[in-house]
Amino acid sequence: MTTITIIGLGLIGGSLAVDLKSQLNITVIGVDQSIKHCNLAQELHLVDQVMSLDVGIQAADIVIIAIPVDQIESLLPKVLTQVKDQTIVLDVGSTKTAICAAVKDHPKRNQYVAAHPLAGTEYSGPQAAMRGLFYGKKNIICDRELSDQRAIETTQKLFNSLGMQSYFQSSESHDKHLAYVSHLSHITSFTLGLTVLDIMQDESQILNLASTGFESTVRLAKSSPQTWSPILSKNREHLSVAIGQYIEHLNTFKQALDQDDRDQTVSLMLKANAIKKLLNKSEQI
Amino acid sequence: MTTITIIGLGLIGGSLAVDLKSQLNITVIGVDQSIKHCNLAQELHLVDQVMSLDVGIQAADIVIIAIPVDQIESLLPKVLTQVKDQTIVLDVGSTKTAICAAVKDHPKRNQYVAAHPLAGTEYSGPQAAMRGLFYGKKNIICDRELSDQRAIETTQKLFNSLGMQSYFQSSESHDKHLAYVSHLSHITSFTLGLTVLDIMQDESQILNLASTGFESTVRLAKSSPQTWSPILSKNREHLSVAIGQYIEHLNTFKQALDQDDRDQTVSLMLKANAIKKLLNKSEQI
Repeated sequence: MTTITIIGLGLIGGSLAVDLKSQLNITVIGVDQSIKHCNLAQELHLVDQVMSLDVGIQAADIVIIAIPVDQIESLLPKVLTQVKDQTIVLDVGSTKTAICAAVKDHPKRNQYVAAHPLAGTEYSGPQAAMRGLFYGKKNIICDRELSDQRAIETTQKLFNSLGMQSYFQSSESHDKHLAYVSHLSHITSFTLGLTVLDIMQDESQILNLASTGFESTVRLAKSSPQTWSPILSKNREHLSVAIGQYIEHLNTFKQALDQDDRDQTVSLMLKANAIKKLLNKSEQI
Repeated sequence: MTTITIIGLGLIGGSLAVDLKSQLNITVIGVDQSIKHCNLAQELHLVDQVMSLDVGIQAADIVIIAIPVDQIESLLPKVLTQVKDQTIVLDVGSTKTAICAAVKDHPKRNQYVAAHPLAGTEYSGPQAAMRGLFYGKKNIICDRELSDQRAIETTQKLFNSLGMQSYFQSSESHDKHLAYVSHLSHITSFTLGLTVLDIMQDESQILNLASTGFESTVRLAKSSPQTWSPILSKNREHLSVAIGQYIEHLNTFKQALDQDDRDQTVSLMLKANAIKKLLNKSEQI
């Protein structure tokens, strides 16, 4: 019987818990500093048991840390220090460089695997946890050469059992890429939300007109600041460059509209259309 | 038996056709300047018959014009001139001010209804037509006071029969609002696509990391330039103001990130979160 202790019972931790708990030979222990989250996780049957942090860590064959990224950075070294010699520790944070740097010289660095399962919704908390959230999605493992081969293999098997395939990348490269394909999308959604809310103050009718296109584009603006503020802060250097490039493209678009340069707007849209092929390619991976 | 002639057999015209054709007592005639579209519309059983423009107009009790908005503007006055005195003419374009201006002084203005069913996908052409596209969505009717009461009632019944509810607005107000809740979303999606495609030229691995959040935010970047270039051009004045406001909000966000001002990023995200309530409210309407 493998015992997995999950620290943090929000959307990601809770969804991992409920899918892992349904597997044979796995006991899932939940840990959360919020009593409310602990109670909810038990009521919703996300975990087998709830324990205190220290007891949960001692009982674990595998520890998964699923809390905001700045808290992972401070908790991870302590967890590594406390775990047994055979225990594997994973985190599932959305930024990886600072977290990996925090345990770079830790004597048990080889027991730690830096993971990032690419799944989520705009909701948060144990009540947002859902079965099958990870199915068919990708998992990224960073800096594999710093982890034991056994730890890497166990991590791959664990994510395979959720229906995920794992890919390898350096933590620096991960953070740079995520700035573009995840964090920038959040910024553009939040900004769209702010812009539309502003105009609505004067124009109460406006949301009668919200279509499915708008809802899709603004969806991420519902995301939790508690989760996203640390992510955006940790990745602010890459993200700032990405936003700068985005503003340049946006100004080019605006200028073409202002000059009613239809050849230029068509050319920009045709270029952007190429995202189709890449998304399809990505779906096939 | 009511005969409805639909001019333009793309995503919108084709989807209207296939749903209307399934109703008792309606014959749907399709008109399209593309032979390929006409053949596809017949192969896909979207319409009962295909006819030439002049014959289709003469046969119609109701004409629905579903072509790019700049083409509506030039075709609509000619159609109105040609139709019988009892025939009602609708267009379903995404911008309304210029189209309404084009028939402002037309002697048959009262037979025309300016409509905009708020539905669509990022795909185009007859092959993108789908049953039920309009079900549960909203339809906007502009400048109702310029149309005959009979024409307004017939239009409402027609959209009701597709599962839509109609709302009334002036064409100017419609275009201003749509700049924010539809056209701006398209611009931000196209721009996100361009930014990510640019960085990908050097970073071939990047799309391995595209998540469902990114896919949702970039979805509209797949939209057809043929449809969207005229819409953005016709609404460029409102849209330019909206983009300007969006860039201001984005710069505020970027500055908060650059200064690592977490209080400010949290405050911006919390403000943007209010879009939740408004989207829910809009869903209830």
